Amino acid sequence: MIDRLKIHSWLVAILFFLCLANVSAVQAADPLPSWNTGPTKSAIVEFVEKVTRKESPDFVPENQRIAVFDNDGTLWSEQPLYFQFIYGRDQVRKMAPKHPEWKTEEPFASILKGDTKKVLASGEAGLMKVIAATHANMTAEEFRTNAADWLKTARHPKTNRPYTEMIYQPMLELLDYLRANGFKTFIVSGGGADFIRVFAEQAYGIPPDQVVGTSLKAKYEVRDGKPVIVKLPEINLVDDKEGKPVGIHQYIGQRPIFVAGNSDGDYQMLEWATAGKGPRFGIILHHTDAKREWAYDRDSHIGQLNKGLDDASKKGWTVIDMQKDWKTVFPPSKQ
Amino acid sequence: MIDRLKIHSWLVAILFFLCLANVSAVQAADPLPSWNTGPTKSAIVEFVEKVTRKESPDFVPENQRIAVFDNDGTLWSEQPLYFQFIYGRDQVRKMAPKHPEWKTEEPFASILKGDTKKVLASGEAGLMKVIAATHANMTAEEFRTNAADWLKTARHPKTNRPYTEMIYQPMLELLDYLRANGFKTFIVSGGGADFIRVFAEQAYGIPPDQVVGTSLKAKYEVRDGKPVIVKLPEINLVDDKEGKPVGIHQYIGQRPIFVAGNSDGDYQMLEWATAGKGPRFGIILHHTDAKREWAYDRDSHIGQLNKGLDDASKKGWTVIDMQKDWKTVFPPSKQ
Repeated sequence: MIDRLKIHSWLVAILFFLCLANVSAVQAADPLPSWNTGPTKSAIVEFVEKVTRKESPDFVPENQRIAVFDNDGTLWSEQPLYFQFIYGRDQVRKMAPKHPEWKTEEPFASILKGDTKKVLASGEAGLMKVIAATHANMTAEEFRTNAADWLKTARHPKTNRPYTEMIYQPMLELLDYLRANGFKTFIVSGGGADFIRVFAEQAYGIPPDQVVGTSLKAKYEVRDGKPVIVKLPEINLVDDKEGKPVGIHQYIGQRPIFVAGNSDGDYQMLEWATAGKGPRFGIILHHTDAKREWAYDRDSHIGQLNKGLDDASKKGWTVIDMQKDWKTVFPPSKQ
Repeated sequence: MIDRLKIHSWLVAILFFLCLANVSAVQAADPLPSWNTGPTKSAIVEFVEKVTRKESPDFVPENQRIAVFDNDGTLWSEQPLYFQFIYGRDQVRKMAPKHPEWKTEEPFASILKGDTKKVLASGEAGLMKVIAATHANMTAEEFRTNAADWLKTARHPKTNRPYTEMIYQPMLELLDYLRANGFKTFIVSGGGADFIRVFAEQAYGIPPDQVVGTSLKAKYEVRDGKPVIVKLPEINLVDDKEGKPVGIHQYIGQRPIFVAGNSDGDYQMLEWATAGKGPRFGIILHHTDAKREWAYDRDSHIGQLNKGLDDASKKGWTVIDMQKDWKTVFPPSKQ
């Protein structure tokens, strides 16, 4: 009889564990193991705890726990050039045999010669030409296939890793931590929404409909009986600077309470989100780690951070010092 | 000792129940009690079961279970006039004392006189004037407050119920049923996204970021040190007809596998979504119930359904006959 009782007691214990396993796992383990102990990590954890504790005066209901993250330089690297620009360059190279006129037509000629400075000097008009050639005048599915193929095979010039492995391990943990605490996580990027949607779910656990980004206009067509979406060579939304709060308004429809960026392109989004009523949290990732990643800010041609650095403390934004605050930068390779 | 053993056995049983309660509740009860037994209800249940059963050849992973619903005439009524038009009319009336010039300026003069036909005859130019006066040149928060106030107090001219109670009980059950089966539910409406976002979460359980609709352009501004989003009197997206697949592409970024509409404004969205690979389900709600709701289709000035009725069987779309298929139309009043 005693044995049977013991077995029952064990069963009870096991069942309790099965029921509570998820809860206790979240409470027990450090949710941010790649973040060094210090004021940045503490500030994040304190914010999340105060908005999720029911009895807290700063409690925020789950449906208002909106967190937005910039992508380039915030979730993945952006040096030596925005990765989507490298995609554009590689597409131009791939398409060049069918476009002999590009040998003399700018900015294609400079792209094919590898003269990045001259390409960038071609300005907005040049950029639109490249976008039209590599991102438009094709169906949404064709674009998705091209981008997915490139992401599979292309390698970063410095690390030789796939671009989808140039993502930040501490940010992956932060995204997971926020979601485990009832936050809905979004990307709000100056990069192309259609481009980011190709890899965001696998890389960050962020589904396509939670990606806001720069976009082209599109049209619906039935081609030979097959309905398609065609990407047009015309800008729909520039989701950068003052375009970011607009993009959030149009796509998310709520003011976020948690916002993370790394450059002055994120300034207005940080400003708008953290000016709302109730508890707000703004983060700027400062690239200070020339050894493990890159070090750049006020004078960078990519991801310039100037006004944001000046105003961060006045605005109450938390600045992440990559070198000091992060134990690891990139996740282990899957290759 | 026997008593203690019994207590332990009971504990085990109770714990099992606590763990499994949600699962068994979903399996046991009819998830669509307001739908009459018949081919429409069976078709819905069969589709959901085949895409969610792991061993089914038609299994669809959860992250691809995207369901989109039109709003006017699909989730709530749209007679005698789109409810948002009634909102516009009521706002014009409310604002009229500050606009003496409207007494002679069309379409405001006709709105104030209650001459609906003349208002509609003012066409797109007239509509844009009303939109500019009632939906733009104000901050997003001001618009939200105005719309929320109106929804609280306005009553439907025929039923005298709040507009948010003119929603369809069978559709609420369908939304819940889909979500319980891992679907993510979206609204894709010709109506204004900002308007629908005011009530969609409470009425349908659909959060603001899962509402796609017609929208105005917007800009970001800092007014007296306070950051705001200003709604501009310029169309951003007309999310109707061929605009619906475009809206889904831009906002959701995936082709839905389940789509519900009621008018020819939903034709292209139905066509595009159901032409995708793998299992797809298209629904057209046919308003056949003059007694409990309204009966209209081919000749209606609102929610015209003509081509959709012609092509439904050829395209494999399921037509809901409101009168036959629905046990109840509206939910019980909360007033």
